[in-house]
Amino acid sequence: MTGRRPGRPGHNQDAVLTAAVRLFNDKGYEATSISDLAEALGITKSTIYHHVTSKQDLLRMAINHALDGLQQAAAEVEALDAPAIERLELLIRRSVLVLADRLEFVTLLLRVRGNNAIESNALMRRRILDAQVTELVKEAQAAGDLRADIDPATAARLMFGMVNSLAEWYQPRRDGAAPLADAVVGMAFEGLRTRQE
Amino acid sequence: MTGRRPGRPGHNQDAVLTAAVRLFNDKGYEATSISDLAEALGITKSTIYHHVTSKQDLLRMAINHALDGLQQAAAEVEALDAPAIERLELLIRRSVLVLADRLEFVTLLLRVRGNNAIESNALMRRRILDAQVTELVKEAQAAGDLRADIDPATAARLMFGMVNSLAEWYQPRRDGAAPLADAVVGMAFEGLRTRQE
Repeated sequence: MTGRRPGRPGHNQDAVLTAAVRLFNDKGYEATSISDLAEALGITKSTIYHHVTSKQDLLRMAINHALDGLQQAAAEVEALDAPAIERLELLIRRSVLVLADRLEFVTLLLRVRGNNAIESNALMRRRILDAQVTELVKEAQAAGDLRADIDPATAARLMFGMVNSLAEWYQPRRDGAAPLADAVVGMAFEGLRTRQE
Repeated sequence: MTGRRPGRPGHNQDAVLTAAVRLFNDKGYEATSISDLAEALGITKSTIYHHVTSKQDLLRMAINHALDGLQQAAAEVEALDAPAIERLELLIRRSVLVLADRLEFVTLLLRVRGNNAIESNALMRRRILDAQVTELVKEAQAAGDLRADIDPATAARLMFGMVNSLAEWYQPRRDGAAPLADAVVGMAFEGLRTRQE
């Protein structure tokens, strides 16, 4: 991680980062100052600058924490020797778990608009992930496992529309996010309508 | 609409409002000033104040434009004498069309966090809409038309996670948003997996 100073305990930087992400989500990145952050944490600005070099630094670390989680899930799925539909299902499940685990970080990531170099880079990394999902849908359609009457890019976006909506409403639960991952997969693959089997 | 001065042509205020929504979405509401807006439009601040009384005024008009569209769709669906599953399907279709039609306005609405009285009011109106969707899912489950193993509030949120994701990626198309509404309904109700009929 950039900005971590040698010899400083990581948990202090983590506390600063967590508070920063919360403020960025509440007020917007542009409207948040290091002074706001100092006030929220009840510490001085100079204490904050012991842990991070700049507001940009905090934005980069926060976005990386979200993207690294999602990219790791994507890389594991990519390495799997299984039909595309199973890899897609696993990618949805893993993404739900990453969102639940890094909720405020992913919320920030999803609001990024490309207003600076850090944000533009994040958008590029997101586009690569999106393309991977679309590719999996295409493969699963070609294998005859997914219906072919929905455009693969649209299907991918709608699936991740469900996943990403967690950022808006997910509340941590005692039983974790696995039941929610089941619900997303069930809805995406089987739909909600009852059937006569 | 509040803030519309008598005798002034509406299209001028509309142009100011449209530009404001774009800036609010790009930079965030807090970080946008009336000066930024004047610069974006190539007019003076005082010309802007001929059309609107304040930045808050613009926020309220923009959010109302989004919410009024969604509430009108919900009211029409509510008045319909049809099974809950059909009302739900229609509500999804109509919501997709409202999003496509008022894309930047709904995008702004979806980013609102309750930072001021206007935003808090918008969140309250959104919660009422969400509750209506959940109620429709419950009714359709009770009628045996939707599977009952997914919590109604979760199903409602995931469905509107798909719908609301349009704000992130929808590009206006020559054939309109109806094919996309079909895709959302198809995915929500039937799922993506192929079946042996």
